[in-house]
Amino acid sequence: MIHAILASTSTLHNEDYLEYLIPHLPELFKNVKEVLFIPYARPGGISHEEYTSKAAEAFSKAGIILRGINEFEDPVKAVKEAAGIFTGGGNTFLLVSELYRKKIMNVIKEVVKNGTPYMGTSAGTNIAGLSMQTTNDMPIVYPPSFQTLGLIPFNINPHYLDPDPNSEHKGETRETRINEFHGLNSQPVIGLREGSWLELKDNKVTLKGKLKARLFKKDKLPFEIETGTDLTDLN
Amino acid sequence: MIHAILASTSTLHNEDYLEYLIPHLPELFKNVKEVLFIPYARPGGISHEEYTSKAAEAFSKAGIILRGINEFEDPVKAVKEAAGIFTGGGNTFLLVSELYRKKIMNVIKEVVKNGTPYMGTSAGTNIAGLSMQTTNDMPIVYPPSFQTLGLIPFNINPHYLDPDPNSEHKGETRETRINEFHGLNSQPVIGLREGSWLELKDNKVTLKGKLKARLFKKDKLPFEIETGTDLTDLN
Repeated sequence: MIHAILASTSTLHNEDYLEYLIPHLPELFKNVKEVLFIPYARPGGISHEEYTSKAAEAFSKAGIILRGINEFEDPVKAVKEAAGIFTGGGNTFLLVSELYRKKIMNVIKEVVKNGTPYMGTSAGTNIAGLSMQTTNDMPIVYPPSFQTLGLIPFNINPHYLDPDPNSEHKGETRETRINEFHGLNSQPVIGLREGSWLELKDNKVTLKGKLKARLFKKDKLPFEIETGTDLTDLN
Repeated sequence: MIHAILASTSTLHNEDYLEYLIPHLPELFKNVKEVLFIPYARPGGISHEEYTSKAAEAFSKAGIILRGINEFEDPVKAVKEAAGIFTGGGNTFLLVSELYRKKIMNVIKEVVKNGTPYMGTSAGTNIAGLSMQTTNDMPIVYPPSFQTLGLIPFNINPHYLDPDPNSEHKGETRETRINEFHGLNSQPVIGLREGSWLELKDNKVTLKGKLKARLFKKDKLPFEIETGTDLTDLN
């Protein structure tokens, strides 16, 4: 039974870090005093220590202690013994490389599938899909694999952006990129706009937040889904 | 002696495919009747055949025949015997994967370093750098390596986009992504805006086109460089 919040972004425009997610932490991390933080994605190159203290400050507003995995001698043991896990955003290639290098990719998968509550934002959400192949990030490091946690049987594109009809830029739109992904891969992709998240609870996957999300299936036209939609059987 | 045009984009707003580059083809491909086209990046999932005929139509305006590498039985031989090479844009991960799979990455590097004129646009330009690690593309396929041609001793970010000061989107800006790249890698990165290209000629590398470009060096603030700037010693 998986309990998770998989959020498109950590931060909304004109809000503090994690502000809109803090009200949901007590339910996800019920009876959890201390959550393990995975800072490996290092947004903007921030250090593990700085990133941990930023996230810990936000979690303290929900009365939860956050401790960085970098503070533990044995990361595998830290994951196995964690009462809850939060993986922050940043660069997905770096995050995935580090999870493999520390040999905890499969350990996280195992403990979360066995009930350890999990929250991800951005890169931390991207890795909850079958693969990291619908990330928006730059390949700043070469990971040993693109396979990720597979907490859900599809892929996620966080920070989903609609094409700008007035744009004169000829770089590809997000929609074109996901279409190219589907030229070579078959799993559905959910484009989560900033403010949306997936809730995994009681064996159900539900779209949460105020916005619609955009669903991409191989060889089909993409379409909008309403908040509250049950995505449990999407694969 | 390398002769090359490395262009940010194939197409400018309100222009036809390759329109702004066609006037420069006769000089680059001097005395070349037939150029070899590498369509592997498949923008939007277009087939090799369709992509080749689109590019061939544009090249015909400069009186040059273009032939797709897919029409040759032996791609290694095709590259070795080519009088000129053009690599089109699309998905860089797919392009690099195919170049390794067909065992022509190093062959292209060798012939171009020995004088075969080369043109790249977008993904075809990205691979001229030391690595493909400053691409904007989605990792839709896992290549055996991120190393690329290294025709120049730095990296290129094609379709460079300035941050939008009015944006409410919290996904990372291009500048932040390149900064994250420099947290782990040391080579300079040139952000080429659409309409700019690098000209490699007479052992010199020069910024061409009407626009400025943005130069990123590890641990330095990024800065603008004027068109016409000599980048030969950038590394």
